[in-house]
Amino acid sequence: MKLRLGLPTGSLQEATFQLFQQAGFNISIHSRSYFPAVNDPELEILAMRAQEIPRYVHEGVLDAGISGLDWIMENEADVVEVADMAYSKSTSNPVRLVIAVAEDGGINEIANLNGKRVATELVNVTKKYLSDHGVTAAVEYSWGATEVKVPQLVDAIAELTETGNSLRANKLRIIATILESTTKLHANHAAWDDPWKRAKLESISVLLQGALRARYKVGLKMNAPEAMLSTILGILPAMKQPSISRLVDNDWVAIEVVLDEIQVRDLIPALKSAGAQDIIEYQMLKVIT
Amino acid sequence: MKLRLGLPTGSLQEATFQLFQQAGFNISIHSRSYFPAVNDPELEILAMRAQEIPRYVHEGVLDAGISGLDWIMENEADVVEVADMAYSKSTSNPVRLVIAVAEDGGINEIANLNGKRVATELVNVTKKYLSDHGVTAAVEYSWGATEVKVPQLVDAIAELTETGNSLRANKLRIIATILESTTKLHANHAAWDDPWKRAKLESISVLLQGALRARYKVGLKMNAPEAMLSTILGILPAMKQPSISRLVDNDWVAIEVVLDEIQVRDLIPALKSAGAQDIIEYQMLKVIT
Amino acid sequence: MKLRLGLPTGSLQEATFQLFQQAGFNISIHSRSYFPAVNDPELEILAMRAQEIPRYVHEGVLDAGISGLDWIMENEADVVEVADMAYSKSTSNPVRLVIAVAEDGGINEIANLNGKRVATELVNVTKKYLSDHGVTAAVEYSWGATEVKVPQLVDAIAELTETGNSLRANKLRIIATILESTTKLHANHAAWDDPWKRAKLESISVLLQGALRARYKVGLKMNAPEAMLSTILGILPAMKQPSISRLVDNDWVAIEVVLDEIQVRDLIPALKSAGAQDIIEYQMLKVIT
Amino acid sequence: MKLRLGLPTGSLQEATFQLFQQAGFNISIHSRSYFPAVNDPELEILAMRAQEIPRYVHEGVLDAGISGLDWIMENEADVVEVADMAYSKSTSNPVRLVIAVAEDGGINEIANLNGKRVATELVNVTKKYLSDHGVTAAVEYSWGATEVKVPQLVDAIAELTETGNSLRANKLRIIATILESTTKLHANHAAWDDPWKRAKLESISVLLQGALRARYKVGLKMNAPEAMLSTILGILPAMKQPSISRLVDNDWVAIEVVLDEIQVRDLIPALKSAGAQDIIEYQMLKVIT
Amino acid sequence: MKLRLGLPTGSLQEATFQLFQQAGFNISIHSRSYFPAVNDPELEILAMRAQEIPRYVHEGVLDAGISGLDWIMENEADVVEVADMAYSKSTSNPVRLVIAVAEDGGINEIANLNGKRVATELVNVTKKYLSDHGVTAAVEYSWGATEVKVPQLVDAIAELTETGNSLRANKLRIIATILESTTKLHANHAAWDDPWKRAKLESISVLLQGALRARYKVGLKMNAPEAMLSTILGILPAMKQPSISRLVDNDWVAIEVVLDEIQVRDLIPALKSAGAQDIIEYQMLKVIT
Amino acid sequence: MKLRLGLPTGSLQEATFQLFQQAGFNISIHSRSYFPAVNDPELEILAMRAQEIPRYVHEGVLDAGISGLDWIMENEADVVEVADMAYSKSTSNPVRLVIAVAEDGGINEIANLNGKRVATELVNVTKKYLSDHGVTAAVEYSWGATEVKVPQLVDAIAELTETGNSLRANKLRIIATILESTTKLHANHAAWDDPWKRAKLESISVLLQGALRARYKVGLKMNAPEAMLSTILGILPAMKQPSISRLVDNDWVAIEVVLDEIQVRDLIPALKSAGAQDIIEYQMLKVIT
Repeated sequence: MKLRLGLPTGSLQEATFQLFQQAGFNISIHSRSYFPAVNDPELEILAMRAQEIPRYVHEGVLDAGISGLDWIMENEADVVEVADMAYSKSTSNPVRLVIAVAEDGGINEIANLNGKRVATELVNVTKKYLSDHGVTAAVEYSWGATEVKVPQLVDAIAELTETGNSLRANKLRIIATILESTTKLHANHAAWDDPWKRAKLESISVLLQGALRARYKVGLKMNAPEAMLSTILGILPAMKQPSISRLVDNDWVAIEVVLDEIQVRDLIPALKSAGAQDIIEYQMLKVIT
Repeated sequence: MKLRLGLPTGSLQEATFQLFQQAGFNISIHSRSYFPAVNDPELEILAMRAQEIPRYVHEGVLDAGISGLDWIMENEADVVEVADMAYSKSTSNPVRLVIAVAEDGGINEIANLNGKRVATELVNVTKKYLSDHGVTAAVEYSWGATEVKVPQLVDAIAELTETGNSLRANKLRIIATILESTTKLHANHAAWDDPWKRAKLESISVLLQGALRARYKVGLKMNAPEAMLSTILGILPAMKQPSISRLVDNDWVAIEVVLDEIQVRDLIPALKSAGAQDIIEYQMLKVIT
Repeated sequence: MKLRLGLPTGSLQEATFQLFQQAGFNISIHSRSYFPAVNDPELEILAMRAQEIPRYVHEGVLDAGISGLDWIMENEADVVEVADMAYSKSTSNPVRLVIAVAEDGGINEIANLNGKRVATELVNVTKKYLSDHGVTAAVEYSWGATEVKVPQLVDAIAELTETGNSLRANKLRIIATILESTTKLHANHAAWDDPWKRAKLESISVLLQGALRARYKVGLKMNAPEAMLSTILGILPAMKQPSISRLVDNDWVAIEVVLDEIQVRDLIPALKSAGAQDIIEYQMLKVIT
Repeated sequence: MKLRLGLPTGSLQEATFQLFQQAGFNISIHSRSYFPAVNDPELEILAMRAQEIPRYVHEGVLDAGISGLDWIMENEADVVEVADMAYSKSTSNPVRLVIAVAEDGGINEIANLNGKRVATELVNVTKKYLSDHGVTAAVEYSWGATEVKVPQLVDAIAELTETGNSLRANKLRIIATILESTTKLHANHAAWDDPWKRAKLESISVLLQGALRARYKVGLKMNAPEAMLSTILGILPAMKQPSISRLVDNDWVAIEVVLDEIQVRDLIPALKSAGAQDIIEYQMLKVIT
Repeated sequence: MKLRLGLPTGSLQEATFQLFQQAGFNISIHSRSYFPAVNDPELEILAMRAQEIPRYVHEGVLDAGISGLDWIMENEADVVEVADMAYSKSTSNPVRLVIAVAEDGGINEIANLNGKRVATELVNVTKKYLSDHGVTAAVEYSWGATEVKVPQLVDAIAELTETGNSLRANKLRIIATILESTTKLHANHAAWDDPWKRAKLESISVLLQGALRARYKVGLKMNAPEAMLSTILGILPAMKQPSISRLVDNDWVAIEVVLDEIQVRDLIPALKSAGAQDIIEYQMLKVIT
Repeated sequence: MKLRLGLPTGSLQEATFQLFQQAGFNISIHSRSYFPAVNDPELEILAMRAQEIPRYVHEGVLDAGISGLDWIMENEADVVEVADMAYSKSTSNPVRLVIAVAEDGGINEIANLNGKRVATELVNVTKKYLSDHGVTAAVEYSWGATEVKVPQLVDAIAELTETGNSLRANKLRIIATILESTTKLHANHAAWDDPWKRAKLESISVLLQGALRARYKVGLKMNAPEAMLSTILGILPAMKQPSISRLVDNDWVAIEVVLDEIQVRDLIPALKSAGAQDIIEYQMLKVIT
């Protein structure tokens, strides 16, 4: 039994391979080969462009794959979402597919796009969105550098953006958001209905998510006189139960807890003030909750 | 009056900008800008993907552009070829769009592709070729790394190749050549019918071709006793008339000729044997014939 | 409320940003922008040359900054030292501002510099030092590569050095040390007297120092039969109290301690000999004492 | 007292210096210097080619060194193996010295090499192996790129290989394996018989092996209701005794164990199913068993 | 006899060394050495910062040097200009020292700078300019990244700029130009009054200027029927006399001329139309007029 | 008919391939292939280490090759020198094989090496030299970094050096020069006695030497009034006859001459003073004398 899994090449390849590495799967790819080796005999990896993975998952050529929601929708792929792989949960700007026009070109809402030309790499998604909103426009496929085309070559673009910086730098203004996209581990229905493949997918999902979680969490460990314990627990976030053990010196306890890295900045000075001692913060490879 | 000229970005950008530099046009592009500056007020340059240039020339957004014949045909662009820009005349392998299949997959000719799947970046050209040859196959768009798809994902591919090395490395065999492609300076009919634009295009063409020619030609200069002149002229290629001038020392002449660099290897030892002296070979920036 | 904090660009920038990252502050800087973004709404970061930070802190343009003691003194900045940021506590050579002369030039002590020329980037500090020692010399500003100027251009230099290697390579000899310099988190008096700003500065200081400490410390954890506990505690450095907890198997204890990395080399073989088992050593992100 | 230790330059240098760093020895080497500095006054490091180290250890110029078994044998060095330093224990292919011939050259076993020419960098080892097997062949020294010499320059080669990829790419076939080689910390007899030097070598060996072990092992920590403890212990590999401690909440225990990283992939989903909570996986710097 | 010549390090070093190379002087500099070797026993080169060269020329430590007019003036150096070294004559924007303010800060002319703060690397030049224009402002020394200081740290800056791009990117507006600066070969009066040194300087000047000229000029050579000669001469720029020689075939002449590269773009098509044949364009290493 | 030619890989490869390129032979080598392609059907190129080429030429595996005299001698190869390929004729320091000892080790002449140990990569040449001079010493093979071995590992080394810098940096002193070595195009006797191969070798030799010569020579062209001709000819080096032709303007002549680049520095100012006008200097690709 093997699970055929499509992983993205290009800009996502290194991040994806590193995540699998952290999850316990060593994937190595030689130049001129597109079938990476992996140290798990139950996996067969195919490395291909993120744009194509959902199509091949849908068609059954692959059992499952990793790609963005944008390309799942563009390919109109009928697939099961196994896990949302938030590659960077701590950043506040997810990737969005937006419609952008010239800052000062007189187009203020998508209704103004009637009869206009729109360039995009995601033609199907864009056409459907405009049609759903009653707009009739010519949507043309664009091979990259799309943002430079307004206003000389087209009237609007539908473009993926994380921060909007590149759009602003080209003096474009966003007038609509078509979708927000995150990376998905997805499978086709046949694979999902196969018990062995589903169990394998769930196992992979647990490991990948454990690895992703470990990237924005840290472990915190400290000692405290037992008398200070309730004060300290009052400082720690309520929803997370710390592990408390008694030291041989019976008046002291050791407290250990896993927290979001961003919380630590405020907690450490407070914990120190509350009497915690020997506070150490450490990194983890996986966090399974 | 300005001529709007589309130049290719990506792998061809540096070579194209260098060629224009040699031809006398300094083009400089800043990051985040797609409208390069050029030191000719009669030109407006747009840098975009080679794939799109023919479409925009055809539609009149650009007056003229530089792109491959393959993309002119894929875009079904009705344009005028101003000049064939053989970027590398000395190499014997032009770029070809070929149909390739698995070496040992049992497909031997395009007739065997009936009912099969073909992946390619040039969907229109491939569909037309197969249809012209009476073959009915599903032709799907492929985003790069196409050669790895055979035989697992598709039965055949239509792929651009110069040497065939990458195809062989993927254990593919060529069964048909759809077209040979070279780079073309091309214009739309409106621009070509405008006398000022046509004159400007012809001037650019002379300079670009002069620069390209200088890349595989060299100048050869030598002195010889006048008595040896006819022997020496017999050695030089017949079709090319050298410039001969008399030195102050009346028994001697100076001979100067422009030759293909590849010829020089055989000529220099022969000329030396025939009595030519002080032979020097030099490079040129442009050769106008 | 915001704290305006000046961070050094140039050779210290990457190290400083990495330290803040480890301390819990993500700082990102785009090219052409000099106001880095930071994921703490209470901070406003200005990135500028280390040389200038103390001046702007002194003048109140910044609340606080990170720079070397050398530049605090050169700017004659009246500031409060919040924390000494020993970027590399384990190296034995702090940065020193020294006076150096030609190895064999006959100048043996600073008294010999009377009437001579001295080149330096820290003109004020050098002038003051010489004047304090009763030496009258011309001190001139030097834009880098100062060590090459002796003896052809000047008689002596006042130069920052860590190892003295560059001075020796230029055949210079140190005859005096003007000051030793380490990196300081410093603030002006107004910011320090503002309760909110002082609390913020102290919080930053705790986190930065916790991160710095974690760079030369490691955690050591081991199990041992309770009977061996006193022997093992006798091996561990006396000043550091380890955390001892009882394992479920009541004859065994777990011992955990934070140590200087340099101590571990000798302790591990000794601990092993003393009966400690399952010794592991691990890295930390912060150590708060 | 100093121990003189030879460390390999070239392709192994960076890996060796990093391993020593992790073991607690900072080694720094300046360009043009071949005597690296080390932060241990009891060590004197010499950096030289791996090929030569065993010879100089044998001759007593060095007390000990790190080099491959292949070069120990090639130098016929009479040394003591202090430790096997399996730089990459998790990879399944050790370095082997093999005899390879042209895939289709008619040579099928080493007996066919009688009267033939063999090129190799390890002339002594190869000669001895052939002689031991009753084969008489001319063995010539080869400076690199040996695999290209078959069949035009020699009939066979004796070459080091890890994966055989380079041999296959040159259309060579392996017909015999002369030896498998791993990296050895080795000493000469005089040093080994000196009590101080032996103790120092054993201490270094413990630290290096602790660092190597930490590269393929991870720590796993989890909480569990005491009722589930025996189930969880049944899942963990039998040969490894975990550390179990009671939490303040008396029904719960904390379990901590060091495992091979490769095992974790299967254990984490199983542990989670068995009721383990708050599972975290972390990296270590050293693991001493 | 030796001429002591100061050449700039830093951003100008490579360009300067290449220019001297083209002029016939091979200058090589080893790391850690600041006295470059040169293949001319009559020269002694010192490589130092451009900012300092005029001061040392003025003081007689150097005979001559290469630096910008800006730094000659900042150092108030009383020197002789031997040659203007227009490193890039073809670019239309010389380096200017300008006063810039915030685009929308309400400062519109230098008169508004009364009582304000101005940051600059050229304190003396800026102070003198403001004083000459009756403006009283605090001028402070700035170590780089000066353009970011407006308006938060200072009210205006005096900054070197070639294109103004960096100023615009920082939303600054130029309100005055203090000076235009080009690179100068300059000498002190003593060196200039010494006949041997003046001759040497003039010789260097001829060679450097010949090399600079060759960078924006090209040679053009063509054959033409003598009957077309006057037409062709009418096309060529009037001020430049071409070399005309008769070919052995008496009806033909060879015409050779040196032109600005920028002229060739228009001339080649015109010359071709006028009957010129075998036109070649070539590069030169030096052009002496 | 094919000539089998060995070209050096490693540090000489790029320089050698560039020289052949300039001589008219395009050689291209793919990674993992050791048989470079060349655009001359009469050549078969083998790329191998310079150390081995003379051995294979001697044995007839190659017809000819390019390697240093040092390795021809070390291999005791009986070959014909076709041409001396002075890769860098203008540098004054040829590569020498020297014997070097510790600066202050008490060894002052090779006689002192009796009974000592000498390390070298050229064992045969060194042994022969010492034996010829009546010295009995142990000569051992050394793999690189030989200069660091004195005095700790050996008493002396025989090492290739161009400038002696590396020896001096290691505090070594040269006490004898065994040989001076330049790069040689060499062939075996069988190839040299074959008329076709000898003709091919001579042709290659003419082209390579023409290319090498062009690297340190330049062309100089100028116009002058005929009246100044004898003065100008008096300035030009006597041994070189310039080409003089009359311009259409009969009072003027054009003078063209090929000179060493190093001479031009002095000649140009002199020629200009003597009335030469429109002096241009240009580079050449080949100079055949």
